Amino acid sequence: MHPLKDGFLPGPRLTLTGSQGALGDLSFATKDLFDVAGTPTGASNPDWGRTHPIPTEHAWMVQKLLDAGAALAGKTITCEISFGILGFNQFFGTPPNPAAPGCLPGGSSSGSASVVAAGLADFALGTDTGGSVRVPASLCGLYGIRPTHGRLPFVGVCKQAPSFDTAGWFARDAATFVRVSEVIFGEAPPDPNASGLLMAEDAFAVADPEVVEALMPVVEKLAALLGSAQLTTLGESGEIALWNDQRNIIQRSEAWAGIRDWIDRENPTFAFNVARNLAFGSAITPGQVEVARIARNRVVARARMLLEGGAILCIPTTPFTAPPLGLSLTETDALSGRIGVLTSFAGMAGLPQMNLPLCQAGGKPVGLSIIGWRGADMKLVAIAKALSLE
Amino acid sequence: MHPLKDGFLPGPRLTLTGSQGALGDLSFATKDLFDVAGTPTGASNPDWGRTHPIPTEHAWMVQKLLDAGAALAGKTITCEISFGILGFNQFFGTPPNPAAPGCLPGGSSSGSASVVAAGLADFALGTDTGGSVRVPASLCGLYGIRPTHGRLPFVGVCKQAPSFDTAGWFARDAATFVRVSEVIFGEAPPDPNASGLLMAEDAFAVADPEVVEALMPVVEKLAALLGSAQLTTLGESGEIALWNDQRNIIQRSEAWAGIRDWIDRENPTFAFNVARNLAFGSAITPGQVEVARIARNRVVARARMLLEGGAILCIPTTPFTAPPLGLSLTETDALSGRIGVLTSFAGMAGLPQMNLPLCQAGGKPVGLSIIGWRGADMKLVAIAKALSLE
Repeated sequence: MHPLKDGFLPGPRLTLTGSQGALGDLSFATKDLFDVAGTPTGASNPDWGRTHPIPTEHAWMVQKLLDAGAALAGKTITCEISFGILGFNQFFGTPPNPAAPGCLPGGSSSGSASVVAAGLADFALGTDTGGSVRVPASLCGLYGIRPTHGRLPFVGVCKQAPSFDTAGWFARDAATFVRVSEVIFGEAPPDPNASGLLMAEDAFAVADPEVVEALMPVVEKLAALLGSAQLTTLGESGEIALWNDQRNIIQRSEAWAGIRDWIDRENPTFAFNVARNLAFGSAITPGQVEVARIARNRVVARARMLLEGGAILCIPTTPFTAPPLGLSLTETDALSGRIGVLTSFAGMAGLPQMNLPLCQAGGKPVGLSIIGWRGADMKLVAIAKALSLE
Repeated sequence: MHPLKDGFLPGPRLTLTGSQGALGDLSFATKDLFDVAGTPTGASNPDWGRTHPIPTEHAWMVQKLLDAGAALAGKTITCEISFGILGFNQFFGTPPNPAAPGCLPGGSSSGSASVVAAGLADFALGTDTGGSVRVPASLCGLYGIRPTHGRLPFVGVCKQAPSFDTAGWFARDAATFVRVSEVIFGEAPPDPNASGLLMAEDAFAVADPEVVEALMPVVEKLAALLGSAQLTTLGESGEIALWNDQRNIIQRSEAWAGIRDWIDRENPTFAFNVARNLAFGSAITPGQVEVARIARNRVVARARMLLEGGAILCIPTTPFTAPPLGLSLTETDALSGRIGVLTSFAGMAGLPQMNLPLCQAGGKPVGLSIIGWRGADMKLVAIAKALSLE
């Protein structure tokens, strides 16, 4: 878990100039999971890059941004093959958290969040399978989105678990975030209204009291913007505590299915925590997956009931601010499990979720998340913009 | 699994001169699991050495040999932290098998077997927890012993699974093997007789037909030396096929108990197969261990009935000759499981077992093992010597 100077990949920086376009004044970085033509995609694992073909095309999202004039400022460290939610990497080092020195940046899109928070790029791309954009956005104090699952092409990006994989982005300010989102979604921001604001009590109950206290003024601003807030729960009688395990069963079984042939052929190198999670994935039975899918179906049904009518849901993005460096695996496992309880709702339901970096607790950032029904991505972006102008 | 030039650790060779003594004309190498004062013990894993204190004393066995005048010729590659039976190492490379070019050397004492077979040392030290001396001895065509469990001090050696861990040695010729064994056991070879030779049908049934065919002339010589051979079985109705799993349950649970604190603190790097086996070890329940211990008790009882009266048992050391390099994990897992069926009997019963490198199949070495009751180590050595003189 040795800390790095910044979140870019070590070695010569890969930069590309964009075309003329709407984002011509902006620079961006991209997680080491996105293809950039002519250079290996390394997934920040020592064996991935050298055992996969060098891409001949840019990832869809990279191409989209270059076409819009944005300049690529470099590729960034990720947790190994996108496994990890706290942001450490045993091989390439752990990107700094510029907003909370001495603390973890969150992951797996750790380097992308780090370089944006440090001002080394205007925005950056990440992937979010189990929380990998939302969590570093919260811990580094950035705007960040997990788009509606399946809405944008996930092309030229290392897969992890296809029924959860999404590609998202980070920015420091709402104005930049809106411009990038307009280009990627191809849609202007709508009016920042909603049929109501829902505040999920059981999600807030997962967070540290100081986090809840810090988030409440943001909730109040949101309520003022969207109409009065109404209390609700994501699940029944504490069932959200089970969602991290159920999501993990589906996610790890899909991840294992996608990676097993490579592992069988190469017997690659991993940090223990990554190999362990893959190994546990290899031992999941079809029966376990079926049971977890029932749980996921319940989440989808609940999400539809709460949000299909146009309401916006708010929850803490993470239950705590950035944890310190140097924790044991037992400690990081416990923290990761607690984070996963909060990221599982939108993850399992395939919903867009956006982190609003509008407050701090104990001097460190922590984010409020807004979640909408499928396709409401630009609605979330519009709300973020409206709040930022207050 | 890239192949190496020889089985020594890369970098400057660690050599030491011995005192005057009985082994003053011999050189030896030692597996990277044995302490040599003043130099890190690395266990051929990238993180082990730098996170453990540099030893201030030699391992008991290293000191014993230096005191007897043998000169240390270098430290040798092992399968990572002694996990592995085929001899590959993803970080430091796979030692060559001089007796079967292009093939695996067997492990985990891969480098020790390799350098002895190549003539780069007169003898070498290894450890044997699940077969790590016996298997490379068979595949590289060497004399090799797993001593009676608990007979010799296992001091200054990386532990794996204490109820199985032993330290043994390899030599190319019986005369050298006898001299080293006399020094280490402190006992002269007894008469090479026995109350009979037992041949375990169920163990021979695990081996390839060409291996059985190659071993039969050696069995006949043994029978001539010890009196006529009698057929027996190690287990009842095929139960030996279960022993690899049962041994693995005990071995991995002990290995996990010993290594978990280090892993928790360091989150170290491993090849996937090693991390996976440790992760599975972490998931073993106390109930599984209890059931496996019942199986082990049955093996001990059976071994006592067969061998306590002074008979010698013979089985194939490995079911096949050295497999080729470049196999997939699925393939190496299958081969390892099959080897483990044969190594589990002496392993679970804590008995001495010695490999006799007296034949080949398809141009590659394969060994016959002789097994005696607890304490019969020098009897096995004496029998090996007598057979070599025929």
